[in-house]
Amino acid sequence: MSRKERRVRVDLADRSYDIAIGEGLTGRLGELALEAGVGTSSNCLVVTDDNVAKTGHLRRAVDSLQRSGYKVFEAIIPAGEESKNLRKAELLYDKAFEAGLDRKSAIFALGGGVVGDLAGFVAATYMRGIVFIQVPTTLLAHDSSVGGKVAVNHPKGKNVIGAFHQPKLVVYDISALNTLPEREIRSGLAEVIKHGLIWDADFYEWLESSTDRIKALDPQIMEDLLARSCSIKAAVVAQDEKENGLRAILNFGHTLGHAIESLSKYGTYTHGEAISIGMAFASEMSAEFGRINRDSVERICGLLERIGLPTEVPLDLDPKELLNSMKQDKKATGGNLTFVLLSEIGRVEVVKNIDEAKVLDLLCRLGRKSV
Amino acid sequence: MSRKERRVRVDLADRSYDIAIGEGLTGRLGELALEAGVGTSSNCLVVTDDNVAKTGHLRRAVDSLQRSGYKVFEAIIPAGEESKNLRKAELLYDKAFEAGLDRKSAIFALGGGVVGDLAGFVAATYMRGIVFIQVPTTLLAHDSSVGGKVAVNHPKGKNVIGAFHQPKLVVYDISALNTLPEREIRSGLAEVIKHGLIWDADFYEWLESSTDRIKALDPQIMEDLLARSCSIKAAVVAQDEKENGLRAILNFGHTLGHAIESLSKYGTYTHGEAISIGMAFASEMSAEFGRINRDSVERICGLLERIGLPTEVPLDLDPKELLNSMKQDKKATGGNLTFVLLSEIGRVEVVKNIDEAKVLDLLCRLGRKSV
Ligand SMILES: NC(=O)c1ccc[n+]([C@@H]2O[C@H](COP(=O)([O-])OP(=O)(O)OC[C@H]3O[C@@H](n4cnc5c(N)ncnc54)[C@H](O)[C@@H]3O)[C@@H](O)[C@H]2O)c1
Ligand SMILES: NC(=O)c1ccc[n+]([C@@H]2O[C@H](COP(=O)([O-])OP(=O)(O)OC[C@H]3O[C@@H](n4cnc5c(N)ncnc54)[C@H](O)[C@@H]3O)[C@@H](O)[C@H]2O)c1
Ligand SMILES: [Zn+2]
Ligand SMILES: [Zn+2]
Repeated sequence: MSRKERRVRVDLADRSYDIAIGEGLTGRLGELALEAGVGTSSNCLVVTDDNVAKTGHLRRAVDSLQRSGYKVFEAIIPAGEESKNLRKAELLYDKAFEAGLDRKSAIFALGGGVVGDLAGFVAATYMRGIVFIQVPTTLLAHDSSVGGKVAVNHPKGKNVIGAFHQPKLVVYDISALNTLPEREIRSGLAEVIKHGLIWDADFYEWLESSTDRIKALDPQIMEDLLARSCSIKAAVVAQDEKENGLRAILNFGHTLGHAIESLSKYGTYTHGEAISIGMAFASEMSAEFGRINRDSVERICGLLERIGLPTEVPLDLDPKELLNSMKQDKKATGGNLTFVLLSEIGRVEVVKNIDEAKVLDLLCRLGRKSV
Repeated sequence: MSRKERRVRVDLADRSYDIAIGEGLTGRLGELALEAGVGTSSNCLVVTDDNVAKTGHLRRAVDSLQRSGYKVFEAIIPAGEESKNLRKAELLYDKAFEAGLDRKSAIFALGGGVVGDLAGFVAATYMRGIVFIQVPTTLLAHDSSVGGKVAVNHPKGKNVIGAFHQPKLVVYDISALNTLPEREIRSGLAEVIKHGLIWDADFYEWLESSTDRIKALDPQIMEDLLARSCSIKAAVVAQDEKENGLRAILNFGHTLGHAIESLSKYGTYTHGEAISIGMAFASEMSAEFGRINRDSVERICGLLERIGLPTEVPLDLDPKELLNSMKQDKKATGGNLTFVLLSEIGRVEVVKNIDEAKVLDLLCRLGRKSV
């Protein structure tokens, strides 16, 4: 347990930070925070959700922080995407005030992407930004812990109210995955596969050949997987912190994915499931436009399915509504459709002004296909 | 009217921007925005308050923007500090959504500091930050238009929820001052005097010798005054964008000023009035600590009074409560009292760990003095 953890560096000038990855790191949160320069003179706040609070992670995190001399307050939000809104942010501002947080204080986000995005938004805006530490407890949250995107949802759209606020440190405890429901594991693997597809054919092949050990959550394999997946995202983000260019490739599978999440009111599919369908669709589109061959499409859908992720466009969602939703995506500008398409496995391109008719046609055909 | 306006450059690497100062600039807002690179392809939103809407400034601004090809939507908030909260921000997010704003859109803040801070906060957080243009219509707002601080209030504290978000351009139309109530003019002059006191003895003397023409709002004088006052703030901000050091000197007069505003529930005193009292007090403190002589104190109080600003600690506010409020100021860390004190006119120093007893004693004495 006291062996050295893995480190992935996110390189962002004076906002650079480390992602520490290893087993049992929650129990060392305090010393890791101290080492990263998080001060103990002001009070700090640990935000988590009621599921995570039940697992014992919260206790371990708080105990470790206290042992290292931190004065810790806790805020527990109800689990689920519904908590990611301005009202809950307001409750956390209140909480921060009650806890006496000042400009030297830190907020720890212990949980999945919901806790991370919400607590991160509060850290970004409380007193114009205080220190923020991510302690992801889901697989998906390895993704949200790199890149500094924090946000809450607006009734009209997901993540519409947000900021860029880099954490000072990310502490990824592999052991947290042991209590995570299988469906959430699969959801996180969708983003891992995405990272392989957009950036690193070797990593993608490694994922194909390691599927069984991944599904068994073999600690050594998960450590490798997380370190590589985080490194890819870190490399992209380091080149485009504020999403003005390259970072758009991270949106692979997300154009349709977001539309599916939005039209199914975020109830039917997890984020990973939605983007799994989105990635399968973007692969089909890539083949349709002659960018990749059908073998690659089969290979991609094959891996997603072996992981247990869906690949087919839901029949109950109207293709026209999906199209409209995609055009209103906040990544769209001026109502034009943009897609990230594959050039080969491991390389993508952002393609603007995509022909709507083609997308609609493919949505209809793929919908029919699965009948 | 078509003669070239004045320009003050705020130097912040890739976030640098210009402050254009001149008569009648609202009528040229569209062309100035175009020139600054604000695109016309996406819709934009002009935020103002109902007082400003009545004056005709709104009409002029919108007409000019439309003439330059902008698709303009309007949002009018009720005038007053009470509008600077998360609820109103939420209404503006709704409005932004209805207006179809996307990541390439711009938000124009036409009004005083309230409109600027609120609309700026929305611009900072809508889709993680969109373009923001300030069109100040109060004298005080020349101050808020330099530095990128945007915020809304929390029930427990002013400006507690905020961000740093630099505008892409500031358009300061001197003519707006003609409709501004005299008390608001005076309030703005307090910050102008502050800039002289903390940074530029020449400017301070110029203010002393120009008092009458300033009070008459002589356009040439006001242009000079604004350009110099903005330049000082720009110089400070350029050296410390995120308020980690030097920028603290801008807090001169604000430690007690904020406490007065807070204890009088933001009703009795304008911001400028409160910091005028705060500056007088900080000057007294500086003399008390042997940093400046009594002549300087008299000179400073003299100028403030000739402008029509208050300099005496309100008798109805309890010194102990004022002290407590100062210790809770969000600029305070760990409950220690920090004051910006004068070394001479034109130069200040940030002094930490100020002896509470001395402050309390002086508050009591000055309170008594004015009986
Ligand atoms: N900021 C970013 O860059 C980014 C990137 C991807 C996703 N996201 C956001 O992340 C969110 C989704 O993240 P998520 O899937 O982690 O969701 P989540 O936070 O809702 O977690 C999923 C579920 O797992 C539970 N859980 C978390 N950790 C657990 C553990 N160790 N043991 C048992 N149960 C546990 C949670 O209570 C929740 O019920 C979305 O809101 C999405 O927008 C953000
Ligand atoms: N962001 C910063 O750096 C910064 C700096 C200083 C102050 N502030 C904030 O600014 C606010 C105070 O600014 P303010 O004094 O401009 O307040 P304000 O916006 O409330 O304006 C004062 C009053 O003047 C009216 N008004 C504005 N322009 C007018 C015009 N041209 N003609 C007639 N009436 C007009 C307004 O409707 C309002 O009633 C505070 O909330 C303060 O926190 C921010
Ligand atoms: Zn995603
Ligand atoms: Zn001020």
